[in-house]
Amino acid sequence: MASQQTTIANDLKAAMAKVNELFNVEVIGNRNFSALDQIYTADARILPPGGPMITGREAIRGFWRDLVQGGNIQSAALRSVDVMPSADGVVEIGNATIVAEGTPAMDVKYVVYWRAEDGQWKWHVDIWNTNA
Amino acid sequence: MASQQTTIANDLKAAMAKVNELFNVEVIGNRNFSALDQIYTADARILPPGGPMITGREAIRGFWRDLVQGGNIQSAALRSVDVMPSADGVVEIGNATIVAEGTPAMDVKYVVYWRAEDGQWKWHVDIWNTNA
Repeated sequence: MASQQTTIANDLKAAMAKVNELFNVEVIGNRNFSALDQIYTADARILPPGGPMITGREAIRGFWRDLVQGGNIQSAALRSVDVMPSADGVVEIGNATIVAEGTPAMDVKYVVYWRAEDGQWKWHVDIWNTNA
Repeated sequence: MASQQTTIANDLKAAMAKVNELFNVEVIGNRNFSALDQIYTADARILPPGGPMITGREAIRGFWRDLVQGGNIQSAALRSVDVMPSADGVVEIGNATIVAEGTPAMDVKYVVYWRAEDGQWKWHVDIWNTNA
């Protein structure tokens, strides 16, 4: 695991932990989907595996309601692995089409956190999943 | 689609497009896996679907070599949907364990881009996938 020089203040970390806990306790535990308003920004976007990107808190609320109730989810314990001050970076949301021999083209969506290294912009965190 | 007030300079966008193109043309098209050194930072992390997080450029190079050659991938066209100046946010990498009734616990990894809204830190971009 790369050790990041994090300069994230403790009060920010505490605030983040509280929001993550809210998701587990209120949204999942208590089926209180209006708590999502305290978790997501108004114009937030989620990129769930197996489906398209979903934009805006109302649509996001519907997504979680369907998933949590439909799948009878009991808990979702979130654990931060790393928290990076993003002042020196850029966050990109994107789509990709992957073509491989002998299979249908596959639609992928991704989030990349970019950072400059030796004067060149590069991918620092790269996560993706499929749309279907 | 939420329209972001992006203040990303055009030369940054051009630099990013060049790196994304490098991935498609050199890494995928020409099987030139050393081009990944120009794409990922030295301590980059990737969070691929169906597997654990992978840290560092050498391990990332191995991942792509195996995937591209093993799956005989022909192209991966990347299209930016949004590019956000991240100066006012925080990037978090995390793990989650999802427990649902009647199924085994599921391990998930995620990247969340946090932003403050009305003085409270919230999830602004949220993407995840499963580890297996």
